[in-house]
Amino acid sequence: MARISFSRVLPALAVVCSVLSFPVLAEHPNLVITRQSVADMRSAISQPGRFTDAFEALQQQVDKTMSMPVTVPVPKDGGGGYTHERHKKNYQQMYNAGLVYQLSEDKKYADYVGSMLVAYAELYPTLNVHPKRKENAQNPGKLFWQSLNEAMWLVYTIQAYDMVYDALAEDKRRMIESQLLKPVALFLSEGQPSTFNKVHNHGTWATAGVGMAGYVMDEPEWVEKALLDLDKSGKGGFLKQLDKLFSPQGYYNEGPYYQRFALLPFVTFAKAIENNDPERHIFAHRDGVLLKAIDTTIQLSYNGLFFPLNDAIKSKGIDTIELVHGVTVAYGLTEDPGLLDIAQQQDRIILSGDGLKVANALDKGLAEPYEFKSVAYGDGSDGTQGALVVMRGQQEIEQAVVFKPASQGLGHGHFDKLTWQFYDKGAEIVSDYGAARFLNVEAKYGGRYLPENETYAKQTVAHNTVVVDEASHFNGNVKTGNANAPKLHFFETSEKGSIARASINTAYQDVSLDRTMALINLPGMNQSLLLDIFSVDADQPHQLDLPLHYKGQLIETSFELQASTQTLHTVSDKNGYQHLWLTGQGMPERGLAKVSWLNDNGRFYTQTSLANADENFLFTQLGAGDPNYNLRQESGFIRRVSQANKHQFVSVLEPHGEYNPSEEYTLNASSQLNALSIEQKDSLTLVSLTFAGQDFVVAINSEQASVPVTFTLQHSSYTARQHLEVFAVGNHQE
Amino acid sequence: MARISFSRVLPALAVVCSVLSFPVLAEHPNLVITRQSVADMRSAISQPGRFTDAFEALQQQVDKTMSMPVTVPVPKDGGGGYTHERHKKNYQQMYNAGLVYQLSEDKKYADYVGSMLVAYAELYPTLNVHPKRKENAQNPGKLFWQSLNEAMWLVYTIQAYDMVYDALAEDKRRMIESQLLKPVALFLSEGQPSTFNKVHNHGTWATAGVGMAGYVMDEPEWVEKALLDLDKSGKGGFLKQLDKLFSPQGYYNEGPYYQRFALLPFVTFAKAIENNDPERHIFAHRDGVLLKAIDTTIQLSYNGLFFPLNDAIKSKGIDTIELVHGVTVAYGLTEDPGLLDIAQQQDRIILSGDGLKVANALDKGLAEPYEFKSVAYGDGSDGTQGALVVMRGQQEIEQAVVFKPASQGLGHGHFDKLTWQFYDKGAEIVSDYGAARFLNVEAKYGGRYLPENETYAKQTVAHNTVVVDEASHFNGNVKTGNANAPKLHFFETSEKGSIARASINTAYQDVSLDRTMALINLPGMNQSLLLDIFSVDADQPHQLDLPLHYKGQLIETSFELQASTQTLHTVSDKNGYQHLWLTGQGMPERGLAKVSWLNDNGRFYTQTSLANADENFLFTQLGAGDPNYNLRQESGFIRRVSQANKHQFVSVLEPHGEYNPSEEYTLNASSQLNALSIEQKDSLTLVSLTFAGQDFVVAINSEQASVPVTFTLQHSSYTARQHLEVFAVGNHQE
Repeated sequence: MARISFSRVLPALAVVCSVLSFPVLAEHPNLVITRQSVADMRSAISQPGRFTDAFEALQQQVDKTMSMPVTVPVPKDGGGGYTHERHKKNYQQMYNAGLVYQLSEDKKYADYVGSMLVAYAELYPTLNVHPKRKENAQNPGKLFWQSLNEAMWLVYTIQAYDMVYDALAEDKRRMIESQLLKPVALFLSEGQPSTFNKVHNHGTWATAGVGMAGYVMDEPEWVEKALLDLDKSGKGGFLKQLDKLFSPQGYYNEGPYYQRFALLPFVTFAKAIENNDPERHIFAHRDGVLLKAIDTTIQLSYNGLFFPLNDAIKSKGIDTIELVHGVTVAYGLTEDPGLLDIAQQQDRIILSGDGLKVANALDKGLAEPYEFKSVAYGDGSDGTQGALVVMRGQQEIEQAVVFKPASQGLGHGHFDKLTWQFYDKGAEIVSDYGAARFLNVEAKYGGRYLPENETYAKQTVAHNTVVVDEASHFNGNVKTGNANAPKLHFFETSEKGSIARASINTAYQDVSLDRTMALINLPGMNQSLLLDIFSVDADQPHQLDLPLHYKGQLIETSFELQASTQTLHTVSDKNGYQHLWLTGQGMPERGLAKVSWLNDNGRFYTQTSLANADENFLFTQLGAGDPNYNLRQESGFIRRVSQANKHQFVSVLEPHGEYNPSEEYTLNASSQLNALSIEQKDSLTLVSLTFAGQDFVVAINSEQASVPVTFTLQHSSYTARQHLEVFAVGNHQE
Repeated sequence: MARISFSRVLPALAVVCSVLSFPVLAEHPNLVITRQSVADMRSAISQPGRFTDAFEALQQQVDKTMSMPVTVPVPKDGGGGYTHERHKKNYQQMYNAGLVYQLSEDKKYADYVGSMLVAYAELYPTLNVHPKRKENAQNPGKLFWQSLNEAMWLVYTIQAYDMVYDALAEDKRRMIESQLLKPVALFLSEGQPSTFNKVHNHGTWATAGVGMAGYVMDEPEWVEKALLDLDKSGKGGFLKQLDKLFSPQGYYNEGPYYQRFALLPFVTFAKAIENNDPERHIFAHRDGVLLKAIDTTIQLSYNGLFFPLNDAIKSKGIDTIELVHGVTVAYGLTEDPGLLDIAQQQDRIILSGDGLKVANALDKGLAEPYEFKSVAYGDGSDGTQGALVVMRGQQEIEQAVVFKPASQGLGHGHFDKLTWQFYDKGAEIVSDYGAARFLNVEAKYGGRYLPENETYAKQTVAHNTVVVDEASHFNGNVKTGNANAPKLHFFETSEKGSIARASINTAYQDVSLDRTMALINLPGMNQSLLLDIFSVDADQPHQLDLPLHYKGQLIETSFELQASTQTLHTVSDKNGYQHLWLTGQGMPERGLAKVSWLNDNGRFYTQTSLANADENFLFTQLGAGDPNYNLRQESGFIRRVSQANKHQFVSVLEPHGEYNPSEEYTLNASSQLNALSIEQKDSLTLVSLTFAGQDFVVAINSEQASVPVTFTLQHSSYTARQHLEVFAVGNHQE
């Protein structure tokens, strides 16, 4: 079918030629960038403002790029290598130059894109699968070692092509489509059905690329297959991905690192669907799950960085380009002024119709503070496969707790049921290793996930949760993990603080793990405490370990600590333990066992554990069993109970004081928690504590919160109306 | 002598009563703050601007302080403890309230100071020496555990008293002077002659406090003694301190950490001398050494932080209050617009006459970029006791090298002759541990220098210089160290780069250490390299170690590295080695031995050593022999030659590339230095290297730079006219 592209009558003509499910012959551009938005943008760049600034910056960058020759090398290198990075840069450059062409109407930009596309069209037919593909790979690429990168290439390149389409001569278009874009799209769809149909982020990139290629090159079948699986059954494809990969609240079960990564093809393809097939109401699909997913990605961050759940590289945060696109599209649809706060922090304007809206709104000063909330995100496609719990302190930057009774999260998931992380004053305090990976650093295992990602980072001992008999949860079996999620018993947030309780009895055979975590505001005190009650109940005696990985320098312990000063050995020889040096140990007497550390920001943290002379504290340092120096040297301690079938780990984490060597003062370097005890009264767990000379009782009601429970303590009577109550003793409330 | 203070005729009267050397009876205030500057400041605060902002902020702070009761506790605690910190706060509060009184003329501020002074005057006569003094201490305090803090108390308190003098009733003044200020001044002078007369920063605080007390309370003898030693011989005292503690260029031989600390009493007392005895021309003393010292303190910083030489806590930088005072006074004298750049970074306005000048100049936008320079600072009072060499990259933030053929630097000095440190893009790359100390953290050895400061931080192996037979320089003897400085042979800086050569043959018996370091700009390349040639020459064979302490994660080595994966042992058992775990080792073949690491900012660094199959590389991690977890866990490697009486360690450090996991790209992760060789041609050292495919030769002429030397290389002829020449081979210059 020949195409004539310079006429306004085209849409009318197109109806005649198009198949039924495809309303009009494509006009260009019409993916994320449309003719209408181009008109608005062209008009906007005649005025000063953020949008014009962004355009001019991009134009300058493109001009600089275009002063260098077009380079389309024969694929050779793996991730991080020269040809890999070159091809990544190329698709970004084509996309950018295409944009500048649309806005400036200067044909030299289209010519640049055209010449690069032609170079690719000449190269592509000569290529076999990539020499650096993994052995027996299901998903090799041709331009890249894995087809994931190839799909990303297509997502950008098809948009670039769409933007310069009108400026290309007919013969060039034919060559580019027939030698390059169609073969790539077919290679990524029919050529790799297992990836294309997979309900997984790799599948989303593939369906997005192929689906948009369908819109641009009038291949409505491709759009259908992208939406509904190659066999159009709906068992796979983009809609199934929307249905399955997000929970009803918009939580993506691999965690925010991959949620952010997955977001771009979702948002991009959805926007293209919205522009081409508005009657699909794609953004309303599943009660607006895509908008919820964008918002959840923001919520799952602290001080600009994503919570490092599962395989996650810790430097990723809300300013990543994927979330810039997400926030831009979401603002375009909702005009929520809180999103402008995030856009302001991102400090990057997308050159699109929605980007123009964001820029104009920021120019007008319409941003309002984005609200970070305490939320339990139900996990799994129906929201019942456990939950990810986020608890926020009273001021956003003050504190955040991530409590993770979430489901496994597929192949990138970690074996860390009921683990937690803690943040305070902008810093990570109780930490998660994240992924063991140096992204794109060739010398580090080709830039891929390191072997230590399997042997350490994914193992249970790398997290802050109970390990039974030195084995990881589900014995480290992903399939078992995916089949068994924890149960969230309750979550509550009020002015008393936030609390959640969750349990799982499938992580180990015949062992039940039950954890309650509460971020508590002490009434009348400017202090939050994190209360942790971890109950283990087993049929047989086991060795129980509860690690805590902390960021900082050990300051003191309240008990005698025998350090290993001349020789270090590993804690054990398997399941992650082979990577931990045992630097010292101590067995606290009955009473309070305190461990204090100081972080790089000069804040002190003390963990106070309720000791019964049955917990041995093993101090560890990461880095053993690491012949290639792949691991960071981080510190932790493991509370170990040797043989028990029942044990309750009870502790309180207390942030305190300030170390300021620059101004030469040190404040509150010592913990102020002087007493701690726990007792069970029917359904109530009562935790008594003394902080800075004042007595408090924390009442945790595990039953229905709607039934108030009254209890007596030291001759006074108290009533717990919610799951979490905190009373200053003496000031009892009825 | 009774005083009448409310009359303008006082000065005339005073002449009659005063001793000859003391021109007029003191008017108040007349130390740093004078009557005239008060008049100017009062007028300034009626206008908006930085100065008024600073005044209002201070007034608010003082108001808040004054809403709480005056607390003058009986001294009990050591550094960091409650009474210690309370008394530190008190003198600061008296000083601040005194200032606000002078500017606001609101008597309530003076009353506050008066009541605190009275409380001290009631307490002081009841005190014996402090209970937490060190055993057998020469310098206990009464209010504080050491008299250094007591002297600091006096420096602030005497100024506070001076500022509220006019507002206090005669009987109160008499009580305050007779029960408090005079006894304190006498305790710090006659009571502790060894400290007062000492040519040391502790002596400077004491003489400053006592001297200013002399001005305020009409005790001209005290001023004389403060300036010239208790016996007025000039052997000790403030002038001797000015003559001896700084080199002619203004380098303070303990290093910038103590230089900054020492600066405040120097600057404060000098300003008081200038105001009271202008004919002494104190700021012109020794060719303006005090102004040079202020400037040198700034120069000895990188990215806002001081170079951590000797005992230094690394978070101290140019924004410390001592240097704010220094820059303020220096600007008052010089009106150098570069100082305003520093003042802008300090972002703190001092409420004084000079502070008003700074504020006004900043308000007018007069700041110009401060210029950081490449300089060799001669060490020692005559500038010939070695030198501290600073080399800067072409752009300030790019690179800085600190090369330290400096003298020992008294008791806070480290045994690190010819060591070096390297900085790049704002970060510490090749590092120095600094001091092992948690300032004011009671749990960490009372906040004092830790035992590990002696056993590790001061030892040679903690630095980046040669250790012979695992013994520290001078066998760790301070006295020997103070008596023997290295020799600086030459220093040069040009557009080719910067170079210095230094040697010492007294660090070890019959061993000569000779090091040449050059920060080289490769012509035609946007690249600097750091060349290091360390020659050891001994009578007998020795074991020679050259450690390099780096910040970051090991990425790769070009040679096989046998890591210890299951057990760690210490490198050795003494002189700092007992604190180093041996994590792995490797013996490179003949050729280039590369070690690459990645720092937290995502930049790669490769050290390329010229290997002759005689250097064993020992990889280390700090933290052994540390029962109280006092040391930070830092990484390094030691190049070890087992038995040699001659050895040349040759290496090049190359910063390269970028790791950006957030934006998902990695650039130039590998070193581009492909060849390296060295040869000696008479007085010329020729280093040939290939970088990114281009050949270069670096010619180092150790002889007089004024005699050009011509040499032939690969049939081309080159002429070295300076100490350092860098030629792109093929592009030879005549």
